[in-house]
Amino acid sequence: MFTLIHNDGKARVGRLSAPHGEINTPCFMPVGTQAAVKTLSNQDLISCGAEIVLSNTYHLYLRPGIEVIKAAGGLHGFMGWQRPILTDSGGFQVFSLAKLMKVKDEGVEFSSHIDGSRHFLTPEKVIELELGFGSDIIMPLDEPVSYPASKTKAEEALNRTLEWARRSKKAYPSTMDHGLLFGIVQGSSYRDLRKQSADELIKIGFDGYAVGGISVGESEDLIYEVAAYTAEFLPKDKPRYLMGVGTPSDIVEAVAMGIDMFDCVMPTRNGRNGTAFTKKGRLLLRNSKFIRDFTPIDPSCGCFACRNYTRAYIRHLFNTDELLGLRLVSLHNIYFYVMLMKEIRDAILENRFTKYRQEFKK
Amino acid sequence: MFTLIHNDGKARVGRLSAPHGEINTPCFMPVGTQAAVKTLSNQDLISCGAEIVLSNTYHLYLRPGIEVIKAAGGLHGFMGWQRPILTDSGGFQVFSLAKLMKVKDEGVEFSSHIDGSRHFLTPEKVIELELGFGSDIIMPLDEPVSYPASKTKAEEALNRTLEWARRSKKAYPSTMDHGLLFGIVQGSSYRDLRKQSADELIKIGFDGYAVGGISVGESEDLIYEVAAYTAEFLPKDKPRYLMGVGTPSDIVEAVAMGIDMFDCVMPTRNGRNGTAFTKKGRLLLRNSKFIRDFTPIDPSCGCFACRNYTRAYIRHLFNTDELLGLRLVSLHNIYFYVMLMKEIRDAILENRFTKYRQEFKK
Repeated sequence: MFTLIHNDGKARVGRLSAPHGEINTPCFMPVGTQAAVKTLSNQDLISCGAEIVLSNTYHLYLRPGIEVIKAAGGLHGFMGWQRPILTDSGGFQVFSLAKLMKVKDEGVEFSSHIDGSRHFLTPEKVIELELGFGSDIIMPLDEPVSYPASKTKAEEALNRTLEWARRSKKAYPSTMDHGLLFGIVQGSSYRDLRKQSADELIKIGFDGYAVGGISVGESEDLIYEVAAYTAEFLPKDKPRYLMGVGTPSDIVEAVAMGIDMFDCVMPTRNGRNGTAFTKKGRLLLRNSKFIRDFTPIDPSCGCFACRNYTRAYIRHLFNTDELLGLRLVSLHNIYFYVMLMKEIRDAILENRFTKYRQEFKK
Repeated sequence: MFTLIHNDGKARVGRLSAPHGEINTPCFMPVGTQAAVKTLSNQDLISCGAEIVLSNTYHLYLRPGIEVIKAAGGLHGFMGWQRPILTDSGGFQVFSLAKLMKVKDEGVEFSSHIDGSRHFLTPEKVIELELGFGSDIIMPLDEPVSYPASKTKAEEALNRTLEWARRSKKAYPSTMDHGLLFGIVQGSSYRDLRKQSADELIKIGFDGYAVGGISVGESEDLIYEVAAYTAEFLPKDKPRYLMGVGTPSDIVEAVAMGIDMFDCVMPTRNGRNGTAFTKKGRLLLRNSKFIRDFTPIDPSCGCFACRNYTRAYIRHLFNTDELLGLRLVSLHNIYFYVMLMKEIRDAILENRFTKYRQEFKK
């Protein structure tokens, strides 16, 4: 299901085969938490070249609910997106967003952040939900810890996550017509715990491995350090996914460590506040210096926004609270991330990734 | 500049030639108050078949300001829209939206509703602004009155509007490389005042005539009555524009009276609150009855939203505050209005408009 095509140092180009299509790695997955990538249509995403989107089990479970999604023929049918979808388990959201949360060995009890209704999710239930969504890549329920965490706390969460991983694997039918099941490495910033987590997950056997519980408050250096050694603990023949990371330079650095998959709300969240990514840095498009700037966000960019609209017009849209502005900059940023991944893949395939990375740092 | 192609009763099909293209009438003009039709891109509007959009001098004058628009090569260059644009003078906005407004014979003084800054607009200044925008159709400054208005008040506003119309015409260069200048008939709900206003405007001579000061609080019947007799006062060989009207059935009724042009915020305003227009009436897409309705808004509709998304998904978007929902329903509604105008034109051309109108009422 994962074919490794080429290595350049630790950086690798591969191809992941999922029920709804192939994904070229390293890849970036736009975040469509609630079955929609904020402000964008599926057609916008396709125009950006996105090969996969991410959605979130916690949010979809609460709204519109599994029965609605099943009645629509799965999440692809519900949202009208025909390419692969990865669904996050919702572990992170239960622990960060839900109220009155109680973790037990059996699962996690919580109150909905929307209406306070009481719910109980087990690893088995989460797998059942994601199978019901028809997700291409399924993440199991895990227990993330915030940073900093004591070793005792990190170990406790790690062991529970491992036990939940075993139960998730067991609950996941071994037929061919469903998606890929990933394991999530926990262990906070403790190298030995990350190693233990990776080893145990590999024994269980998953289609891919994610580095979880990262980018939860640590310094950039520590994120890099944890990602780097954790990547080393993971098998070469499976995709590696660094959850929730990050800036363009974070991504380039993580690819250099052998990471294959990324997701982050950064391009859309920045898009909605008028911050555009370019090769020369970020542009704050609300800035008055753009009032008479009739060039595109990035003259070298081929996205819909850059082909059709100017900085001055987009600034005006933000200045007058016109929603089109949010869409145009979100679209540009997703295109930027997707193109970044393509550039990274090309650089690896041509054995010039080290140079690409050095130039990117500048 | 206006060619009358066919009559069916008082209803007429025509073609209006403007610097940026031809407009088939009867036509609907989507409202892009601040140089953007809310939630929609120019490409969305083209996909709906819109031949012209409306923008607003008061708003554009305040933001981004005439100098920015001129630097962009005019409003078309600024917003990236290549088809015709009609700009309303801003009279209505000065009288309804601005603060501390003082009408004088010379012009109108007001404070910006945005930052309180003090401004003075004269008929001449408004023409200068609209020429700077490069508008295809230019509306002169007028003084609308709210409903009900005493005859004295209506007459006073009418006389000032006429004087301003004379000055606007004088300020408007008689060369060929600019847009069309319309006159605005005022007179509230007084038939004799409407007649007087129309007669005097015709003496000045305009490229088209608008019925202004309508749909400002009157009953539907009174709107119809005023529109009907005012249309009669206007020359047959010039386009007639009923400002700010209305519902689909208002439009069908007004076409029957000989009106050629319409604008209204209704399709986009309703779109943003989840109300979709269909031949069978309005759908309130937030309604829980659509939770599992996996059909398009209107199965017979060819718009982008109906070709790609379901009622259930759009309901979910509104339910979860995803902005894509606002765009999809706004787009559908604009498409509905543009298609309505095409159907109306076809019915007139085939001499079956009376029947079409009867069936529409049902």
